[in-house]
Amino acid sequence: MNLLYTFDLLGTAAFAASGALAGIRRDMDVFGVLVLGLVTAIGGGTLRDLLLGDIPPFIFKDETYLYLSVAVSLLVFLFHRRLAFLTHPLTYFDAVGLGTFVVIGTHKALAFKLGFFGAVMMGVMTATAGGMLRDLLSAKVPMILHKEVYASACLAGGALLYVLQRSAVPPDAAALISAATVIILRLLAVRYNWSLPRAAHRTP
Amino acid sequence: MNLLYTFDLLGTAAFAASGALAGIRRDMDVFGVLVLGLVTAIGGGTLRDLLLGDIPPFIFKDETYLYLSVAVSLLVFLFHRRLAFLTHPLTYFDAVGLGTFVVIGTHKALAFKLGFFGAVMMGVMTATAGGMLRDLLSAKVPMILHKEVYASACLAGGALLYVLQRSAVPPDAAALISAATVIILRLLAVRYNWSLPRAAHRTP
Amino acid sequence: MNLLYTFDLLGTAAFAASGALAGIRRDMDVFGVLVLGLVTAIGGGTLRDLLLGDIPPFIFKDETYLYLSVAVSLLVFLFHRRLAFLTHPLTYFDAVGLGTFVVIGTHKALAFKLGFFGAVMMGVMTATAGGMLRDLLSAKVPMILHKEVYASACLAGGALLYVLQRSAVPPDAAALISAATVIILRLLAVRYNWSLPRAAHRTP
Repeated sequence: MNLLYTFDLLGTAAFAASGALAGIRRDMDVFGVLVLGLVTAIGGGTLRDLLLGDIPPFIFKDETYLYLSVAVSLLVFLFHRRLAFLTHPLTYFDAVGLGTFVVIGTHKALAFKLGFFGAVMMGVMTATAGGMLRDLLSAKVPMILHKEVYASACLAGGALLYVLQRSAVPPDAAALISAATVIILRLLAVRYNWSLPRAAHRTP
Repeated sequence: MNLLYTFDLLGTAAFAASGALAGIRRDMDVFGVLVLGLVTAIGGGTLRDLLLGDIPPFIFKDETYLYLSVAVSLLVFLFHRRLAFLTHPLTYFDAVGLGTFVVIGTHKALAFKLGFFGAVMMGVMTATAGGMLRDLLSAKVPMILHKEVYASACLAGGALLYVLQRSAVPPDAAALISAATVIILRLLAVRYNWSLPRAAHRTP
Repeated sequence: MNLLYTFDLLGTAAFAASGALAGIRRDMDVFGVLVLGLVTAIGGGTLRDLLLGDIPPFIFKDETYLYLSVAVSLLVFLFHRRLAFLTHPLTYFDAVGLGTFVVIGTHKALAFKLGFFGAVMMGVMTATAGGMLRDLLSAKVPMILHKEVYASACLAGGALLYVLQRSAVPPDAAALISAATVIILRLLAVRYNWSLPRAAHRTP
């Protein structure tokens, strides 16, 4: 699964960059920027491992994730003006991370014998909890709860993986197809500015 | 303990509804409303199981809680205007959930050999952490920390259960009496608008 | 390690007082003040134990921490005007807590076979996560992410302990030197108003 690991690190770097940028926007100091980058990149997977009881969490078994997150956050802190040309590619890397994290999370939850709902929830959480923590630490309502088709892409990918793993499709193909589904849905959502319905709650 | 399970589901549904309503009020999209409903309904029990080391948490052993929470949240999202007549009964269901969750949490903590303080704290946390998470995700100071006699009712019920379990009272009666105490205190607090004292901290 | 335990309790009391004061400032009721005191005092160590898989967390094995935190918070709630003369000493106690918590956290993480990054991160988290939770529950951006040299002192102490534990220095001396480093750095930072660099992100 070397490809998956590469994607995983790419996604981790993209998430760390998004966290570090959020810290800079909130006028945090360098420590705050590093914490936001770290939490965004590894928060989802860490929460997943806590809930599955896979202790210590993955970040302590392979510290690559920690060093990578902090290195990326530090680069963003130092050179964020000169890295502005990366904003556009970042959307792609972020989508790759999203797809990869959903597949890793759902797959791991199924290996831990969780049911359909639990496994898909774990996949979505792996991909989205880091971003929620980032927004909470910025004292903002998590972006994912009111903006953009972000979680729905994850839900679709997680559910698809569940189905494919129970079919004749080879495991690697199932993982690839599910991740690709998340990535494509996410990029289409960005491209066409899709958003989810809201309740019409305002009283006149 | 079939009655307890019924009460548990009733409380879960009431908590999910309160979470979903909070999401609608914050203008979240349908995913956000589902997440808030889910988190409010199952957050307290999940945190309790994490702290007790009962992994995976109850929600993954019996997915009924997950499906129920999401179904209720979805109904609230779709029909919240037409469900306005349920606001009043919701207070009662919410109180039933409060009492049930306190008893379940304290009882479980005692079974895991926690001491008096730890067990009562677990009971209160089971009943209140979901609502705190709901408020955090709405970027608000948790309601329970500054308004209403909500936690005190839980504290009283948890402490009572601790005492009764060490007395000659049969276990089922102990659970029922403790839950009823929470429910009655909570409803009296709503009815008579009780609130806890604050520190007079304003400087002139 | 009787000295360490004494320092630990002193730090716990100082952290509880800082949490309770934050609750009073946010106009919380007595329950809210107790919760903020408790969470600030024990949040970091509890999160550490969750992540290390040392379940149940230390607070349930020795309830002294719980009783002490609540007692201090209650005293602050009742007498915070008359305790104003303690504001200055509180800075010292808080620094003692910081140093002690870093050493305990890093030491425990190393005993659980974590690597360099993981162990230092656990030390910093033990000392700072409680304060972050306090600020989150107050719906504020955690102070530590944008103000003061607080985390850096912890980082230095944790890294130092890692190095010393691998050297010929006796364990007790290693702990003492590391804790003292944190405390002195912290007090110097307060005294000379040090702060960390920020990214110059404002566009003209």
